[in-house]
Amino acid sequence: MSSTRVGIINVTGYAGSELARILHNHPEVELVSVTGRSAAGKQLSEVFPHLREASMTITSEIEESVDFVFSALPHAASAEKLAPYIDKGVPVVDISADFRLKDLPTYERWYKVEHPCPHHIETAVYGLPELHRSEIRQTKLVANPGCFPTGTVLAMAPAVQAGIVQTDVISDCKSGISGAGRSAAVEYGFSELNDNMSAYGLRGHRHLPEMTQELSALSSNGNVSVTFVPHLAPMTRGILGTHYAKLSKDVTQAEVDEMFREFYADEPFARVVPAPPATKQTWGSNDCLLYPSVNNETGMLIVISALDNLVKGAAGAGVQNMNIMLGLEETAGLKGLPVYP
Amino acid sequence: MSSTRVGIINVTGYAGSELARILHNHPEVELVSVTGRSAAGKQLSEVFPHLREASMTITSEIEESVDFVFSALPHAASAEKLAPYIDKGVPVVDISADFRLKDLPTYERWYKVEHPCPHHIETAVYGLPELHRSEIRQTKLVANPGCFPTGTVLAMAPAVQAGIVQTDVISDCKSGISGAGRSAAVEYGFSELNDNMSAYGLRGHRHLPEMTQELSALSSNGNVSVTFVPHLAPMTRGILGTHYAKLSKDVTQAEVDEMFREFYADEPFARVVPAPPATKQTWGSNDCLLYPSVNNETGMLIVISALDNLVKGAAGAGVQNMNIMLGLEETAGLKGLPVYP
Amino acid sequence: MSSTRVGIINVTGYAGSELARILHNHPEVELVSVTGRSAAGKQLSEVFPHLREASMTITSEIEESVDFVFSALPHAASAEKLAPYIDKGVPVVDISADFRLKDLPTYERWYKVEHPCPHHIETAVYGLPELHRSEIRQTKLVANPGCFPTGTVLAMAPAVQAGIVQTDVISDCKSGISGAGRSAAVEYGFSELNDNMSAYGLRGHRHLPEMTQELSALSSNGNVSVTFVPHLAPMTRGILGTHYAKLSKDVTQAEVDEMFREFYADEPFARVVPAPPATKQTWGSNDCLLYPSVNNETGMLIVISALDNLVKGAAGAGVQNMNIMLGLEETAGLKGLPVYP
Amino acid sequence: MSSTRVGIINVTGYAGSELARILHNHPEVELVSVTGRSAAGKQLSEVFPHLREASMTITSEIEESVDFVFSALPHAASAEKLAPYIDKGVPVVDISADFRLKDLPTYERWYKVEHPCPHHIETAVYGLPELHRSEIRQTKLVANPGCFPTGTVLAMAPAVQAGIVQTDVISDCKSGISGAGRSAAVEYGFSELNDNMSAYGLRGHRHLPEMTQELSALSSNGNVSVTFVPHLAPMTRGILGTHYAKLSKDVTQAEVDEMFREFYADEPFARVVPAPPATKQTWGSNDCLLYPSVNNETGMLIVISALDNLVKGAAGAGVQNMNIMLGLEETAGLKGLPVYP
Repeated sequence: MSSTRVGIINVTGYAGSELARILHNHPEVELVSVTGRSAAGKQLSEVFPHLREASMTITSEIEESVDFVFSALPHAASAEKLAPYIDKGVPVVDISADFRLKDLPTYERWYKVEHPCPHHIETAVYGLPELHRSEIRQTKLVANPGCFPTGTVLAMAPAVQAGIVQTDVISDCKSGISGAGRSAAVEYGFSELNDNMSAYGLRGHRHLPEMTQELSALSSNGNVSVTFVPHLAPMTRGILGTHYAKLSKDVTQAEVDEMFREFYADEPFARVVPAPPATKQTWGSNDCLLYPSVNNETGMLIVISALDNLVKGAAGAGVQNMNIMLGLEETAGLKGLPVYP
Repeated sequence: MSSTRVGIINVTGYAGSELARILHNHPEVELVSVTGRSAAGKQLSEVFPHLREASMTITSEIEESVDFVFSALPHAASAEKLAPYIDKGVPVVDISADFRLKDLPTYERWYKVEHPCPHHIETAVYGLPELHRSEIRQTKLVANPGCFPTGTVLAMAPAVQAGIVQTDVISDCKSGISGAGRSAAVEYGFSELNDNMSAYGLRGHRHLPEMTQELSALSSNGNVSVTFVPHLAPMTRGILGTHYAKLSKDVTQAEVDEMFREFYADEPFARVVPAPPATKQTWGSNDCLLYPSVNNETGMLIVISALDNLVKGAAGAGVQNMNIMLGLEETAGLKGLPVYP
Repeated sequence: MSSTRVGIINVTGYAGSELARILHNHPEVELVSVTGRSAAGKQLSEVFPHLREASMTITSEIEESVDFVFSALPHAASAEKLAPYIDKGVPVVDISADFRLKDLPTYERWYKVEHPCPHHIETAVYGLPELHRSEIRQTKLVANPGCFPTGTVLAMAPAVQAGIVQTDVISDCKSGISGAGRSAAVEYGFSELNDNMSAYGLRGHRHLPEMTQELSALSSNGNVSVTFVPHLAPMTRGILGTHYAKLSKDVTQAEVDEMFREFYADEPFARVVPAPPATKQTWGSNDCLLYPSVNNETGMLIVISALDNLVKGAAGAGVQNMNIMLGLEETAGLKGLPVYP
Repeated sequence: MSSTRVGIINVTGYAGSELARILHNHPEVELVSVTGRSAAGKQLSEVFPHLREASMTITSEIEESVDFVFSALPHAASAEKLAPYIDKGVPVVDISADFRLKDLPTYERWYKVEHPCPHHIETAVYGLPELHRSEIRQTKLVANPGCFPTGTVLAMAPAVQAGIVQTDVISDCKSGISGAGRSAAVEYGFSELNDNMSAYGLRGHRHLPEMTQELSALSSNGNVSVTFVPHLAPMTRGILGTHYAKLSKDVTQAEVDEMFREFYADEPFARVVPAPPATKQTWGSNDCLLYPSVNNETGMLIVISALDNLVKGAAGAGVQNMNIMLGLEETAGLKGLPVYP
């Protein structure tokens, strides 16, 4: 039986290289084509020496016949490049934000571009398997979630759905620097960020409308408001999210624990853990660790989430979605344990 | 005119060594005695090679006559050692928590010890000059604030006093590892913490009652509730605090900016800054940077604070308090700019 | 066909936990028993949350029947615990130094202990497959090399064997902190080591005699002298070795490149790379990257090596040795690409 | 008595901002003008928030009358901008490499430019006070040494001058990333360099001819050859240099210690230390720490040096040179102790 032939559009960022790393050891698929813009013509191992075993020539367009396509291009460019594949019925996962938001004006307001192919938005599925597995199974266009929304939505979903919290939620996220991409900028230089921490996005961050869309859909009153403050932490990978919501019902820690464990009982990657998680416990793996905590003094539910922004927050989730779309074992290619310390 | 002769009890932790660093270049005082427990008999420069220029023999007790004493001992031990100086009328700054809480049962519940000299609590002043300068000027016993409360109280004080926010406040703090002290423990090892982030203290942290005490005193209804979650960030120094409170009045960003600038108009170290601050902008300096932000979509006031936990969060605040107590220029010894990058 | 049943003695250090991580996904063996001393009775996932998928109870002794044993105990303790298995003919890999040195007095001088079972030294094989593969295939006792010697011996072996360099070699190694183990000590604390670099072992480091033993065996005059200076670098994993030797013959860069490539032509993990390697290009993988450079101005051969001290420098090499000993595919369980960035 | 009025050409890099930090608290001079290229028109505090207390408008040219000028421009641009000041007799310190090398063809070969004003090379003094203090006192043009040569020359000078070592020296230097400047480049990004280490410059580094020039001048045979390999270490500041030279005479550790201590007996910043130094023991200070070690087994002298590349390796040395040139106390403005941890 022959492998599924996979292509990656724009392999030269961190999401793209992480897709190549994971797909190289995937037992059921074969990576046959990778594209880049300025790096076209180079070997993959020239740009990413750690991919020496997975090397191939980077081309400017996908030149092989492929059965599945990932795009790791920036928004707008991504939808544009994917459109022909979508039109041909080739299944795709879009790592960019282009198909995440169901409401076109919301997309265009936050991303400040005209959407290249808005008619595809309706068939796209938001690729969070924990919430949308059956739809993912039936679509050919998956919008991979943003790294921040993955942790925040998984952290708050059980409580929002159960209606035990008020619907204004605070998401205080601490992200490793790889989330900013592989970019040349003074402000992402080692000397600027090492041993340093700061908040950003206080005037609004593009991942906010995804959080609102997904959590609102789970809420009985259909409307969740999120105050989201992302932070840059001096680490390469990882997002630690600390989420706060006022309890609207009188619940015990044990009840909340049970609620979370049930909600994620059959999930291979969303795990409720018995102690506050640390980001490094997910390094290189597709796990999202969740720890709910009831603060009786202040009547607050606090939920901690930890994940690797490049895996469960990007490439790993993409492969998980691909596995579901192709009817493969959902954990195929994703069984490696986190690398710690 | 002779210098004030100063002693440091327990110089061998990070607060103690930072006191020695600052005092060495203080123009008006002279460090004449430093004590340690297991390090007694060693030179200060053996324990801290960076203090080679400030070296002297570490003794088990203060052996010189001193005009001013700092204690950087852990709680309980600190009050016990300071009691004789307090009794003799020697002015002291206690870096430990022993005299911070005005309510004895609260102290004993959180610190799980009997207070060694509860009769001194009443005369002690909570050493946050921005709130208590005139009392500090008149006391001989200053309780130096905890590192987390310093940022949180300074961040929320203007809004709480003005009554523009509801009185349940969230304090999400990210601390450098030096806040955990100079201790031998697997969990504070480099390999465990590097490139890693986690929350702790979800079942309650000892710095919480200070925050509550100080903010409640500023509130017209006398009762502020704080949900406080500290985090360990992979950096040596610095605390970044992100504080959230629901606005209870309709205020603009400009009004809040003005309110904060006025509140801290004459302060040498509490500075309202025009962009979200980064912890490294305070490295080695006594500054606390404050950035208030009004989120109109969610009706939330967000205030970011940044400080060096060993300076404004410990030793620098101690020297600032000493300067006030001794009638010296408040910024003496504290004029060095932050070391960046 | 049933799996080989494997046990790890002393799983609670970083070499032990890394063995568990690798063995968990090994296709041909099953990890059935892990031991610890103070952690006996705990679940593996309590000590190492990242091993949640590989969890089992830590026991004080191996309680299951096993076909293969790793020991990650400290020296002396290791040989003592392994002796009964060696005596019974159970194949073992000793991660400690106990069976590395062929000369007993050298061992006892450097390690300052009496060897617990010196009669086994002779049958032990130094587990560097690149030099001793056929002997490893035939022994039941492999002494896993030290992390520093692995890089240094692989870096210098081709040139020493070819006789193109003088026989006094300088090895300047920069190691990540995990090489110091999972220990509670002030000097390995994050605050002490972060953003900091230092040399140590200037009075002699225990890995030196291994380097000398292995390189001397390759030299036609039987005697190589190594000046070895290890350094602590502020990173968790990785050893970068910079090796210097005076050229004794007139060779070109191209000739040296060819010599190195031929020497390692069939090696799955020792790779000659086309640009100076960075340690992170090996993170979590079993690769040792080698880059020889001829300095014509000074007549010096410089060879850079990079490896992950916990994988090729410890656990990965151990699994590679196990694979050879058991007649499995040599790369089984070791095919994961490095995790970068 | 009025202060000396000082200007900094190109304040917007790390050497420039560090000059501003140090000069702000200098008791005898006043910083009156700072220039930048793309940042002209901005406030210094916009570019460097940590300089909020030292802020002034960045101009494209020095617009104030100045008594002393620092240039922190890149090479070639620096000499060109300084030439008018040199011609007018205004004393200057050039942080760039333009006036370091006495041999014009060597300069033009390594820097691949035509020198803008070669006639000034002869009067320029290489600004290492430990070797050239009396000439510095008498010149108006000081070429501030490179960061790597500072450590290497200070480490090897005593032994080379005493003739106890052979004249081929190895300099293995590990530098913090700020040495690469404040530049926008993928390869200096946090994600690329964090937790990572690599060698570079194996085909020749521009700091090599300075090392050779200065050490050769100290050697009785007039010719020292240096094999220099710089490395990038994942830290912001600091250079740790490990230097190796074969002993040519039979000397004891005690004799070497004494030789080094005497050589630097009157030096305020070059300090021979009793234990291997760590870079962080110099953070923010102008110290260069030196530790010689005799390896009797291999007949090698090893000398470790540690310094802050932005202070003793750039701005601090510049201020030290200025102090000497102006007849001020040599340590003025440079008395702050290192900030540790």
